[in-house]
Amino acid sequence: MRMYDIITKKKHGEELTESEIRDFVREYTRGALPDYQASALMMAIYFRGMTDRETSALTMAMAESGDILDLSSFGTLTVDKHSTGGVGDKTTLIVAPIAASVGCKVAKMSGRGLGHTGGTVDKLESFPGYDTGLSAEDFFRQVEKVGIAVIGQSGSFAPADKKLYALRDVTATVDSIPLITSSIMSKQLAAGSHSIVLDVKCGSGGFMKTPEDAERLAVGMVNIGKLCGRNIAALITNMDTPLGYAIGNSLEVREAIEVLSGKGPEDLREVCVELAVAMVRLALGLSEGEARERVLSSLEGGEALRTLKVWIAAQGGDASYIDNPELFPKSRIIHKVYSTESGYVARIDAEAVGTASVTLGAGRAEKDEPIDHAAGITLYAKPGDKVEKGELLALLHTDRDEAVKAAESAVLKAITISDEAPEKKPLIYKIVG
Amino acid sequence: MRMYDIITKKKHGEELTESEIRDFVREYTRGALPDYQASALMMAIYFRGMTDRETSALTMAMAESGDILDLSSFGTLTVDKHSTGGVGDKTTLIVAPIAASVGCKVAKMSGRGLGHTGGTVDKLESFPGYDTGLSAEDFFRQVEKVGIAVIGQSGSFAPADKKLYALRDVTATVDSIPLITSSIMSKQLAAGSHSIVLDVKCGSGGFMKTPEDAERLAVGMVNIGKLCGRNIAALITNMDTPLGYAIGNSLEVREAIEVLSGKGPEDLREVCVELAVAMVRLALGLSEGEARERVLSSLEGGEALRTLKVWIAAQGGDASYIDNPELFPKSRIIHKVYSTESGYVARIDAEAVGTASVTLGAGRAEKDEPIDHAAGITLYAKPGDKVEKGELLALLHTDRDEAVKAAESAVLKAITISDEAPEKKPLIYKIVG
Repeated sequence: MRMYDIITKKKHGEELTESEIRDFVREYTRGALPDYQASALMMAIYFRGMTDRETSALTMAMAESGDILDLSSFGTLTVDKHSTGGVGDKTTLIVAPIAASVGCKVAKMSGRGLGHTGGTVDKLESFPGYDTGLSAEDFFRQVEKVGIAVIGQSGSFAPADKKLYALRDVTATVDSIPLITSSIMSKQLAAGSHSIVLDVKCGSGGFMKTPEDAERLAVGMVNIGKLCGRNIAALITNMDTPLGYAIGNSLEVREAIEVLSGKGPEDLREVCVELAVAMVRLALGLSEGEARERVLSSLEGGEALRTLKVWIAAQGGDASYIDNPELFPKSRIIHKVYSTESGYVARIDAEAVGTASVTLGAGRAEKDEPIDHAAGITLYAKPGDKVEKGELLALLHTDRDEAVKAAESAVLKAITISDEAPEKKPLIYKIVG
Repeated sequence: MRMYDIITKKKHGEELTESEIRDFVREYTRGALPDYQASALMMAIYFRGMTDRETSALTMAMAESGDILDLSSFGTLTVDKHSTGGVGDKTTLIVAPIAASVGCKVAKMSGRGLGHTGGTVDKLESFPGYDTGLSAEDFFRQVEKVGIAVIGQSGSFAPADKKLYALRDVTATVDSIPLITSSIMSKQLAAGSHSIVLDVKCGSGGFMKTPEDAERLAVGMVNIGKLCGRNIAALITNMDTPLGYAIGNSLEVREAIEVLSGKGPEDLREVCVELAVAMVRLALGLSEGEARERVLSSLEGGEALRTLKVWIAAQGGDASYIDNPELFPKSRIIHKVYSTESGYVARIDAEAVGTASVTLGAGRAEKDEPIDHAAGITLYAKPGDKVEKGELLALLHTDRDEAVKAAESAVLKAITISDEAPEKKPLIYKIVG
C-alpha cells in the first residue's frame, strides 16, 4: 500500500477498496503512517464522502483494531442504546431497566462525561456503593440474572477510532457524515450487542444541528449497522433544549426515578418510551405494537422501577435511595434564578446550560477531573411556557460560591424570553429502520 | 490565529484574509504548526481553490519568508525566464544571451536538475572552468558589464515554499493551480527580476498535461505577478515531445550553440524566439514588433552568440568550446538505436526519454548525485517523420555499459510508430499577458 495513492484515489472521488481501507487503519493505528497523510485523507473524505461499502469497511476495520465484547452467549437478546450526546440525557437510566424488565439483555460499557454532556457511569455513581468496575465474570453473571449491567469502559475499544478522532478534532474534519458514522458504529460493533438503537440528538445542544443532517447520519448509521449484521434503528430526537428539567448527576437520577415511577417530565418520558419500544422490538423480534404494549405495561406496572432497584443493588449500590430520593446529598448552595423579564420562553440553549452545569461542578472540563454528584441545574420552564418577571426559572446546585454569579448569568442568557410564543418543534423527528 | 479556524474557513469556501495567510506561513515555517494541520489546509485548498487575493498573499508571504535578491540597481531592465520544467529544455542558454545582447539584464540564480528534467546550472558546467559560485559583488559586476550572469542558487529563497512543497509532495496536494502558482511565483519574486517570462510546458513531458490546465495556471501566474507589481507574460508551449533533438548536458549546450549560430532544430529556435521577444518586450517596454526585430537581428547578426562567449568567458568558462564544439568530451559508448518497424513517428514521450537519459548518467535520481556531462540521448526523428524499419532513431551516449540495454528499450518504447501521420499539434499554444 502506498498511502499517497490512497489519498490521490479518494481526492479524485474514486472508491477505496476494503483492503486499502484496512491497510490504512492498521498502519495508522500502529504508528507507521504520519498524521499529515492521515489528515489529508480525512479532508479528502470530507469533500468526496464515502460509499456505504467504504464506510462499513472503515467501521469494521476500526472495530477490529481493539477488543470486541463477545456477548454471543446471550444469543440475540442483547440490545444497546447509544445517544450521540445531549444535555440532561438520562434516558439510559430509564430505558435500560424497561428493556431488561421485559426480557432483553442490556450488557453495557458506558463512558464518563466530558465537556457539556454528561456520562451514564457518572450518573450511576450517585448511588453510594455502585461498582462500575465489575469483573467480566460478575458482569456476565449479572446480565444473565438481572438482565442488565452497566460498567465503565475497560479494555481498548476501537483504538483506531480514538487516534483518528483526536486527529480529526484538530484538523476540522469531524463533521463528515461517513466519518462520524464509522466512529460511532465502530464502537457500537466493539460493544457487542446484537441490536442497537441510536438516539441521534438534533438541535443546538446536539451533535447534528439540523433534522436533515441528523437524518443523513441516522440513515448512514442504520445502513452500516445492517451491512455489519446488526438489528438497528435510529431515532432522531430534539436537543434544542435539555431533555427533562434536571441537569447534573444525582438530579438526573432522581428525574429518571420519577419517570420510572410513572411521573416525571413529559418530554423525557415520551423519548424514553420510543427508545424502549425500538429496543424491545429489535431484540425480541416483536411488532411495534407488541413492543409498545410491553414497554407501557412494564412502566405502568412498576416492573421497570423494580428492575432498576435489583440492578443497582446487584452492582453494590444503595437501592434504598430509589424509594427515598431525598437521601441523595444536597449541594450547600441552592441558588434561585428569577426571570428578569416577562414573556414566553422562546428557547433554552441546551449546550449553554450544560456548560454552566459543568462550572457548578456537575461535569469535567478535562478528563479525570473529580465530579460533584449533587451539583447541577434544575430548570423550571420549558420553551413555550409563559413566565413573569421575577418568576423562578432555575435552581443552581453547587458547593462553589465563586461559580454562582457567572452560572446565573449564563443560564439567564441561555433562556431566551420573547413576546411571542415560539413555534413548537417536534420532540421526535423521525424513526429510521 | 487559531489554525483550526483557518482550516474550517477554507473548508467552507470562505476567503482567507491576508493576515491569516501571513500568520499561517510564518508559523508553519518556524515550525510552530504541525504538518497535519498544514496538510489538511492544503487539501481544503485543493478542493476550494483560492481567490487571486489569497494566492497573491500566499505568494508574497512565501517570498518574504527568506532572502530576496535585490536587483533594483539595474532599474527596470532585469528580466527572468522561468520554465515549469521540460525535457531537452535548453532555452535559457539561448534566450538569456539574446536578451542580454539587446540591453536587458539577466541576473539569474538557477537550479540543478532532478528527476527527468535537467537544470541550467548543470548544463553550464559542461564548459570547463565555468564558475557557478560567484560572489555577490562579482555577480553584480558581471551583470552590469556583460548583461548576464547565471549562478547556482545560494541563500535561502522562499523556505516556506520549500517546506510546504515537501509536505504537498507526500500528501497528494501538488496539483492545485493556486498552490502551484504561489510556489512558482514566490521563488520568482524572491529572484528579484522586474520582468518575468514564464514558459508553461504543456503535454506528456510537462508539468501541466492539457492546454486548458496550462492556461489556467498561466493566467493565474500572470495575475499574481501583476498584483505583485511585476511585468509578466506567460507562453504555453508544447512538451509532448522533447524540445530539439538533444537531451543531456553538453549535448544540449551544443544544440543551443547551433541555434545561436543560425542553425539548429526549428522547434527549439521558434520557442526561443517567442520567449526572447516576450523578454525584450517587457524589459525594454517595446512593442511586440520592435522586440521581434531586435531579437531576430541579434540572432542573425551573431550578437547573441558573441554575448554567449563573453558571458561564459567572464564566468571562467572555456569559451573556445563555443567555436569548436567537438572539444566537448564524448561518451565512451555511443550506441545506435534503430527503428524496429516502418511508419510515422506518432509521438515521442518526453518524460520517458528524460528518464532514460538519467539512467545513462545525464541526470540525477537523488539530490547531490554526480552527473556525466557527456551522457544523454540524441534523437534522429520528430513526430510526423516517416521512418523505415532499421533506420536510425537515436544515439545513446553513456559510459555505463550496464545501462545501454534498458535505455534502448525505454527509448524504443517512448517512440510510438504508427501507420498514419499524427495530427500536428501547435508548438506554442498561447501567449498570456
